[in-house]
Amino acid sequence: MKNIFNLTQTLKNLFMSESKRLFNFSAGPAVLPIPVLERAQRELLCLPNAGASVMEISHRSKEFEPIIQGAGSNIRKLLNIPESYDVLFVQGGALLQFAMIPMNLLMGGTANYVVTGAWSKKALSEAKLVGNTRTIWDGNDTGYRRKPSDEELDIANDSAYVYICSNETIEGVQYQVFPNTNGIPLVCDASSDIFCRPLDVTKFGLIYACAQKNLGPAGVTVVIIRRDLLERSAVSVPSLLNYKKISEAASMLNTPPCFAIYIVKLVTDWLLNDIGGLDKMHEINKEKAALLYSAIDNSDGYYKTHADKKFRSIMNIPFRLPSEELDKKFLNSAKEAGLVTLGGHRSVGGLRASIYNAMPREGVATLRDFMLEFVKNNPYNRHS
Amino acid sequence: MKNIFNLTQTLKNLFMSESKRLFNFSAGPAVLPIPVLERAQRELLCLPNAGASVMEISHRSKEFEPIIQGAGSNIRKLLNIPESYDVLFVQGGALLQFAMIPMNLLMGGTANYVVTGAWSKKALSEAKLVGNTRTIWDGNDTGYRRKPSDEELDIANDSAYVYICSNETIEGVQYQVFPNTNGIPLVCDASSDIFCRPLDVTKFGLIYACAQKNLGPAGVTVVIIRRDLLERSAVSVPSLLNYKKISEAASMLNTPPCFAIYIVKLVTDWLLNDIGGLDKMHEINKEKAALLYSAIDNSDGYYKTHADKKFRSIMNIPFRLPSEELDKKFLNSAKEAGLVTLGGHRSVGGLRASIYNAMPREGVATLRDFMLEFVKNNPYNRHS
Repeated sequence: MKNIFNLTQTLKNLFMSESKRLFNFSAGPAVLPIPVLERAQRELLCLPNAGASVMEISHRSKEFEPIIQGAGSNIRKLLNIPESYDVLFVQGGALLQFAMIPMNLLMGGTANYVVTGAWSKKALSEAKLVGNTRTIWDGNDTGYRRKPSDEELDIANDSAYVYICSNETIEGVQYQVFPNTNGIPLVCDASSDIFCRPLDVTKFGLIYACAQKNLGPAGVTVVIIRRDLLERSAVSVPSLLNYKKISEAASMLNTPPCFAIYIVKLVTDWLLNDIGGLDKMHEINKEKAALLYSAIDNSDGYYKTHADKKFRSIMNIPFRLPSEELDKKFLNSAKEAGLVTLGGHRSVGGLRASIYNAMPREGVATLRDFMLEFVKNNPYNRHS
Repeated sequence: MKNIFNLTQTLKNLFMSESKRLFNFSAGPAVLPIPVLERAQRELLCLPNAGASVMEISHRSKEFEPIIQGAGSNIRKLLNIPESYDVLFVQGGALLQFAMIPMNLLMGGTANYVVTGAWSKKALSEAKLVGNTRTIWDGNDTGYRRKPSDEELDIANDSAYVYICSNETIEGVQYQVFPNTNGIPLVCDASSDIFCRPLDVTKFGLIYACAQKNLGPAGVTVVIIRRDLLERSAVSVPSLLNYKKISEAASMLNTPPCFAIYIVKLVTDWLLNDIGGLDKMHEINKEKAALLYSAIDNSDGYYKTHADKKFRSIMNIPFRLPSEELDKKFLNSAKEAGLVTLGGHRSVGGLRASIYNAMPREGVATLRDFMLEFVKNNPYNRHS
């Protein structure tokens, strides 16, 4: 029996190493569901019936076709996407979308940008390289703690589109109700909160999300675009930057990032089959976020978060302790307790817990318990 | 003992499945080295000391930094790249390079294109969307069986660059000696033959290669660029398409395709440590190619390949049998023998053996034996 035990341990160490996994609160690339990683691991040398790894087969093979098509149809099912929208897989992350959106949709016109944090600001600065933009709201004066109301948005009637970021990861600010743009196409960066809750796609002209938060690994970006907007893409826009050409080629103008798409397929399988869809996912996410926000709210001001209550993100929770010294101590002690990558974005410091779909409730509860314990052991008056 | 054996088998089936692997002659995405896949499999749930998968950690983490830097320095070592060149990791494959090259390097000028097959032709047609081009040689009249000599190239003195494709995968035509461009920057698509042999980088202004042949999985592209050419990138070129900005950000303007870069790191480790560098790799590749070409040349015209002898590719060997019927029979019988994806490109048909770096000699020898056997069992006169 001892031999069998040793063998099991050896093989487990060799093949799995999951015993060393920690609770990883990274803002992205971020935690993936364990069943997804385990399946990818099992199939890494040989995709069933392919005779090779998913990294080694043609994107036009009969083995890869059901993967890219399955990923697309899973996304359609999860968000209940009507036929009037296409789902595209592209490369380049959000930063390339920042440029592709005006390259394809502007047609010499002007776009309206709503700046609610670092990511929408960056999107605006890229768009300026491509064409005409107008900032119709900027939350800079109030420290990017909230989203604007419809009344605050002065949308020009001839605007090519209105651009928003659904969830700002650095500030932890998330739209609860999306703006009404009176028929002007609403373009939404949903990179950090796609699939965290149900979404009425018909309110948008274009929604995109890079994969490395709720979808899969870095290297693939999903674009959901209303088909009539495809007609805006000029033939002169280079093929791989041209939504229309990408759509016509079913996202295979050239070799797509097959492995990343394969993981997206597995993640969306997990959302549909293990979780049970986005209503369920939303319930779980709200519950997880409430664990941390209640620890913050009940700490008598020991923990402070950034966003106004109404706009708190259920994906990214930036917070601070009474001093930078305590921030640092928290970060280091948390790491020792197996709670890692809790540092805030390098531009703002402090702490941040990113609790995407794949972060298990257990991880969040462990962090909450750690936070409660930390207050007890590190009262503020001792350090003030 | 039986229990241990069963357990081993069960775990092996669960985790490895490599027993089902076949000899895969795919033109790309293509075969990867087994030690690379095995290591990626072992580490898939937990990169050593990271507490998470390489897909789940920040690209700016101390765990990912040595991966991207290691991949870069491996590439430098393998090709002996001087400091006057930068090595960039980008997304979008060759198709995006087709556009990025003129977007960055043209500066309103005209580029000279050498068309030696399907890929250089496609590069030209994308470049035409961006700016002015001139075709200085086109092998169409002679069926793309060879590369031009320097005497045939009428390079304009004010050309922004001269564009070539090192190895045409569809036609199986490869440069043996690269053109002398008299100081005009030579831009080379080396997607399908990078690292197949040593290369004097100093002869080029820019060399690029998408990963999915000799480098890693689809989703990352390596660009080797002479630093003075970075100054050509206009500030108006969107960031993720801008070589200069990418260089300044050390390929991390945004989240790079981390998993694909991780595999590139492992593949280049394998080339350096297991193979022993590009001279050794070249010897092995020449030997593998000779196995197939000799079977073709000694078949009394039963097998015919496309390229003129002097320009035969050591990476992609397209060939045909005396009839389409025999082509089909060969393809099916080979598949039954575990030799898969030997079909020619969908645009030309026939057969094609892609024998990239990671294709083991054993696979090529098995194919050679199969070819010899097939001639015996399927003499042409029976079918004519």
